[in-house]
Amino acid sequence: MDLVIKNGIVLTMNKGMEIVHQGWVGVDKGCIAGIGSHDTLPVPGAKTVIDARGGIIMPGLVNCHTHAPMTLFRGLARDLPPLAWLNRHVSPADERLTREAVYQGSLLACAEMILSGTTCFCDSYWFGEAVARAAATTGMRAVVGEVLNGFSGCGEMEDGFDRAQKMVAQWGKPGRVTVAVAPLFAPDADPELLKRAADLARKNRVPLVIEVAQTGSEVSQIARKHGKSPVEFLESLGLLGPGLVACHSIHLTENDMELYRHYHVRVAHCPESDMALGSGVAPIPRLLGLGITVGLGTDACASNGDLDLFCEMDTAAKLHKVVAMDPEVIDAETAVKMATINGAKVLGLDRITGSLETGKRADIIVVGLSGHHLVPMYNPYSHLVYSAAGSDVAASVIDGKLVMDNRALLTMDVGAVMDGVQTLCQNLGGL
Amino acid sequence: MDLVIKNGIVLTMNKGMEIVHQGWVGVDKGCIAGIGSHDTLPVPGAKTVIDARGGIIMPGLVNCHTHAPMTLFRGLARDLPPLAWLNRHVSPADERLTREAVYQGSLLACAEMILSGTTCFCDSYWFGEAVARAAATTGMRAVVGEVLNGFSGCGEMEDGFDRAQKMVAQWGKPGRVTVAVAPLFAPDADPELLKRAADLARKNRVPLVIEVAQTGSEVSQIARKHGKSPVEFLESLGLLGPGLVACHSIHLTENDMELYRHYHVRVAHCPESDMALGSGVAPIPRLLGLGITVGLGTDACASNGDLDLFCEMDTAAKLHKVVAMDPEVIDAETAVKMATINGAKVLGLDRITGSLETGKRADIIVVGLSGHHLVPMYNPYSHLVYSAAGSDVAASVIDGKLVMDNRALLTMDVGAVMDGVQTLCQNLGGL
Repeated sequence: MDLVIKNGIVLTMNKGMEIVHQGWVGVDKGCIAGIGSHDTLPVPGAKTVIDARGGIIMPGLVNCHTHAPMTLFRGLARDLPPLAWLNRHVSPADERLTREAVYQGSLLACAEMILSGTTCFCDSYWFGEAVARAAATTGMRAVVGEVLNGFSGCGEMEDGFDRAQKMVAQWGKPGRVTVAVAPLFAPDADPELLKRAADLARKNRVPLVIEVAQTGSEVSQIARKHGKSPVEFLESLGLLGPGLVACHSIHLTENDMELYRHYHVRVAHCPESDMALGSGVAPIPRLLGLGITVGLGTDACASNGDLDLFCEMDTAAKLHKVVAMDPEVIDAETAVKMATINGAKVLGLDRITGSLETGKRADIIVVGLSGHHLVPMYNPYSHLVYSAAGSDVAASVIDGKLVMDNRALLTMDVGAVMDGVQTLCQNLGGL
Repeated sequence: MDLVIKNGIVLTMNKGMEIVHQGWVGVDKGCIAGIGSHDTLPVPGAKTVIDARGGIIMPGLVNCHTHAPMTLFRGLARDLPPLAWLNRHVSPADERLTREAVYQGSLLACAEMILSGTTCFCDSYWFGEAVARAAATTGMRAVVGEVLNGFSGCGEMEDGFDRAQKMVAQWGKPGRVTVAVAPLFAPDADPELLKRAADLARKNRVPLVIEVAQTGSEVSQIARKHGKSPVEFLESLGLLGPGLVACHSIHLTENDMELYRHYHVRVAHCPESDMALGSGVAPIPRLLGLGITVGLGTDACASNGDLDLFCEMDTAAKLHKVVAMDPEVIDAETAVKMATINGAKVLGLDRITGSLETGKRADIIVVGLSGHHLVPMYNPYSHLVYSAAGSDVAASVIDGKLVMDNRALLTMDVGAVMDGVQTLCQNLGGL
């Protein structure tokens, strides 16, 4: 075997939620080649052996919705009303970004994601090609959505489709980095654009990523204009289906949820960003009750503050408990599922990643348990959700390759990226 | 001077919220002896010089409500209904604890608090004497509440008052570790006990720490029994006053809030624990609007999952935004105030700690800004609340003494404490 991770508690996140105490996971040719308990550890072993030192060996986390380049705007103009934040600060900052800035910001985002246990992310931004290159070079698994509209620096709409088609041609094949189509959906979005985007996604069998029902004002504006809820409006355009990743999905009616169920729509839940923007709380327990697949996303650093899915699991579990006034809602196992196998399902990647099963691509993290804040341990799921932090992730393997070991990134010079970003932000000035 | 911390962004948290860029803070005889900008750095310097390396130099954080020994129950029986959690798991676990277990659990709690930037905490638990010893030996500032009732291992009620009186005699003088009186307030609490506890606190000028209006069931039971809200009931007993630290304070009526304002009651807000238990969301923006002083508390590890006030600041800021559907509510500055100077006010310690001002005791932390997740920086308050983690705290000075430097604890052998706790929990068995 190429790689063995040994001496850990293996949380497989497979259908039976099997746990192997004192277990190992073997990797060969990029895939998981075996999982077992200590007494079956392969001898003579593997080219590379990682000692989990009693930590948790589990699937890498899946970030179902983010805008990686906006790491450049972390902490920019916080605590403002949504329109002032977006129109006065974030959109002008977006407009200043160049292809190179997008690449640098995405590298920094990949560093943060790897160092906090994320091995796969789905992105939506302009210059998707630069985001895809950053994912490719840092070794991350990614589904990169090219945003078609809404950004003057990318030219006219047709240019957006041109770029998207080029992205699909270049990255549309199965592989570590793949593509999505990500039209901006605002109350004034052109229905024809949305339909064409959906066609493009469907023909190429790539996900369609849309932010749906994110604010009350979006809902009321679409109601005025089209006499429908955002979800009903998307249905009328033929956009609902199993390829749709419906991000946020906060302001849903009972009928909207029923439509999601009927069309097998998947949901990317972003609790921290939704809280920070004062957008509302998505009805996740209700969606889960209907059997709808829900994954977690951090959304952008610009609204969230970080790209750490450990924080997101903790917040998701706690937020829905207090909204429902019921501490049994979204238990720790459910939160870990949302951040792993169900996130993979949301992105259509559950045959490839999201759980530790022989034959799947090897996306694996080791969460160290030697921290003072993780002693004693009664339950690994509770520990992951309520007590562990992204900084407890000790090692990360993506697509069979060791990309981080003992907190050191092996695919990039993070110091150089930080310096580059510092210079870039000074040069962009007045972000 | 004994100690100088130099080369940082000094957030004083004083009345004018002054910030000194490229500044230093000097410490002499346990007190802050000077604050200035780089060009005024004292020469020849000090016995000890800490280089903040461009990080943030700020007051240590104040945890206004916790139960340190319950660190032993972190992750025990999560995601359960409150009564099942409390009666079937937590209370039986409480009952198993010995004085030595309380001491060991408190040492571990102190390690976690120091390593995540907390320099002062207010505790409520049985065997308060053991909690106070743990604070004393680890170098923390603490207000230790002796719980008078509700625990069979501590004997009869009179024993509770005996213990509390002994605690007051031993720790009641001004100093780094002081005492509070902390009766358990449940719907069946004896009004006489509450009144006697308040008398004891008042006579000795120490805080009275009570968990108020924490659950809907508490409110309805007290209404049935006394025809009053919990706050009105406490008023009828003469317990409301500036010495009262009202923890949680979730289910408040308009009249309750008005009583808090009238009597200058202070509130310890514990958002993460309140969320985890599904208890509800305290009306903090409303209380702040009335001019009521609010600090932050983690509550116990058993409900929260950690004792990290950085998480608490982030959650407080985000939670109230989404409840109010208004991102301007609890801005980052307000959250940092709640975790520092206003926390000190809640505990009656604002003449001593909570801000960096010449003459105050030197409770200072350095938050490193060299992490990949903290580049670039636009605003230090936003960074602290939304992006920094407890693990970014690089150094901690309490009462003028360096207790943690470069992530190493200088007052305790944390490895030995962790081993001790592991053994203890195995021996206690079936927690």
